[in-house]
Amino acid sequence: MNRDAFSARLAAIRPADAAAMDAARRRQAQLAKPPGSLGKLEDISVQLAGITGHIDNEIEKTRIYVLAADNGVVAEGVSSAPQSVTRQQAINLTRGVTGASAIARHFGDELVVVDVGIAEDYTCPQIVNRRIARGTNNIAREPAMTVQQALTALDTGMTLAAQAKRDGVTALGVGEMGIGNTTTSAAVLMALTGCASEDAVGRGGGVTDEAFARKRAVVAGALANLRPDANDAVDVLAKVGGFDLAAMAGVFLGAAESRLPVVIDGFISVVAALCAVRLCPAARDFLFSSHGSYERGYAVAARALSLTPVLALEMRLGEGSGCPLGFRVLEAACAAMNGMATFEDARIDDGYLAPIRKKDCFRNR
Amino acid sequence: MNRDAFSARLAAIRPADAAAMDAARRRQAQLAKPPGSLGKLEDISVQLAGITGHIDNEIEKTRIYVLAADNGVVAEGVSSAPQSVTRQQAINLTRGVTGASAIARHFGDELVVVDVGIAEDYTCPQIVNRRIARGTNNIAREPAMTVQQALTALDTGMTLAAQAKRDGVTALGVGEMGIGNTTTSAAVLMALTGCASEDAVGRGGGVTDEAFARKRAVVAGALANLRPDANDAVDVLAKVGGFDLAAMAGVFLGAAESRLPVVIDGFISVVAALCAVRLCPAARDFLFSSHGSYERGYAVAARALSLTPVLALEMRLGEGSGCPLGFRVLEAACAAMNGMATFEDARIDDGYLAPIRKKDCFRNR
Repeated sequence: MNRDAFSARLAAIRPADAAAMDAARRRQAQLAKPPGSLGKLEDISVQLAGITGHIDNEIEKTRIYVLAADNGVVAEGVSSAPQSVTRQQAINLTRGVTGASAIARHFGDELVVVDVGIAEDYTCPQIVNRRIARGTNNIAREPAMTVQQALTALDTGMTLAAQAKRDGVTALGVGEMGIGNTTTSAAVLMALTGCASEDAVGRGGGVTDEAFARKRAVVAGALANLRPDANDAVDVLAKVGGFDLAAMAGVFLGAAESRLPVVIDGFISVVAALCAVRLCPAARDFLFSSHGSYERGYAVAARALSLTPVLALEMRLGEGSGCPLGFRVLEAACAAMNGMATFEDARIDDGYLAPIRKKDCFRNR
Repeated sequence: MNRDAFSARLAAIRPADAAAMDAARRRQAQLAKPPGSLGKLEDISVQLAGITGHIDNEIEKTRIYVLAADNGVVAEGVSSAPQSVTRQQAINLTRGVTGASAIARHFGDELVVVDVGIAEDYTCPQIVNRRIARGTNNIAREPAMTVQQALTALDTGMTLAAQAKRDGVTALGVGEMGIGNTTTSAAVLMALTGCASEDAVGRGGGVTDEAFARKRAVVAGALANLRPDANDAVDVLAKVGGFDLAAMAGVFLGAAESRLPVVIDGFISVVAALCAVRLCPAARDFLFSSHGSYERGYAVAARALSLTPVLALEMRLGEGSGCPLGFRVLEAACAAMNGMATFEDARIDDGYLAPIRKKDCFRNR
């Protein structure tokens, strides 16, 4: 996919359906409850209507894509775990024995691991092989990848979302496994938003004070040397991002293209979502938050997307571990929208009771 | 149940099992993840271990008790909906067409409506009849109920929890339906904590400015006239509470007695939980938050209980509507605890990979 083809594809993405959202709001106003009393569940039902074009939605089949890749910057000693953990946990994710995969398995969510750039060899047929290269370059020395590689990673993600749509998936989640990716995510976030290092660079899996200082210096140095263009998220991803981040951004864009709701996980996931929205503002309409990650930087990216998390769990595991509970929140919104009686039909005709008349209730709203 | 029998029953409630909690913490430290990275899911798994005495817990069967009762204070014009809505929505709850019941039905949670004081007649065999009286007295004029009635309501709630335990329930939720109960809850909260009216009295279902002013005046007047004893939650419940609140407090106490985890819903539910903990501090160990209600006063009660909500949905519906998603958070905690590999068994013996050694990872924590 060249840049022109990519731009044309993004230009074809339509925002949410305003008429369907209006219809959903009208329906919410008819449901027998104090107006607004279901809070964000109401907002979610309206947003889902905008995505699908109808008000009676169901979250029937869910899939979490976990994009796995290595990041050359680990050579700088910025991570708390060795690079081999990317490969090991990618395999463990397919076995349902990591945090995200154990939770997803419990709830019946599919979890699909996609190798977009694991550095080391392994044998695991359950991992989908879309490897672009064996890890990125070290951003402390050179751009992470070429622009063409970034476009390939974005295309890979978009293709995965389209495949999910064909498979009957009705809601997507986006996670990752890639040692070093809190470093690249911090660099991308700073490049796109101009935020301070203190607000973007966190301790990831838990680095020492020494490694934390190195991490901050590496990010600052990479941005100073490589000068990514804040107005071009492809350039930012190519220079200081990673294959994981770029492919995740592609899944977010593909969700919009395929008109699928997509649930964000934590810090790396929300930075990828921000990249997607910078490339295609209409993609914002398809995003749903799950938890507010404890990792510093999540809040900056969420604010830039006008997103507030629906779960407060102080998690910072990644892997898409917040997506299963995020899916459940979407399900709750659908259950209320589809299952609640309206003021009209909440009437109980058993000889004792008059219908609930909306005009008698909740007069101030 | 007289006061002495009640006190003896509370004195027999044991707090969480510290040894089981230590064992759960040790297990969490062995799981292959950055220490602490599952945040509150780790805390929840430890708390569940303290409740059951073992570390491998499952949330297999869930039940929400919705305590329904009328409150005499509605005669003062403090509510946005007429008293008849208590009866109507109690019936609709059994039909799965209210917010809480539609969401519970989706997730397979049982929802049991218990009449502890509905004022008006109805016919609905699905509602469990434990009616104490036809609504409480008007707290603007006299105590809501006698101390004996408060004890009966507390006993009713405790008996319901014990029944749930016998029925194989592994997690309880506590909701309510009672027009006027944000007024009584605000009065109880102020009596127990001494907080200001501005922090306790909210707009409930959405009252007019005029009714809101009346509501604040009624609460202040009731507290000044009836002088509930801040050190005796039974006295507080009897003077300015309601049958719904007292029975809910009883379910929280009964959950502790029956060693069941119990999920709080919103404002009224958390005030009932606070009553339970004031009567029996050990009951705190059995409480789990769900969402942080938008209704003013939730935050005061949650702070008094050192509870922080795990869901941020800006809901203020009541009925136990936050409990289904709260149960899902408990399930996620159990799924991670039970399903994740340890550093020891995350090894992958396929000829390529060495085990993940904990000492190589996450060195700073």
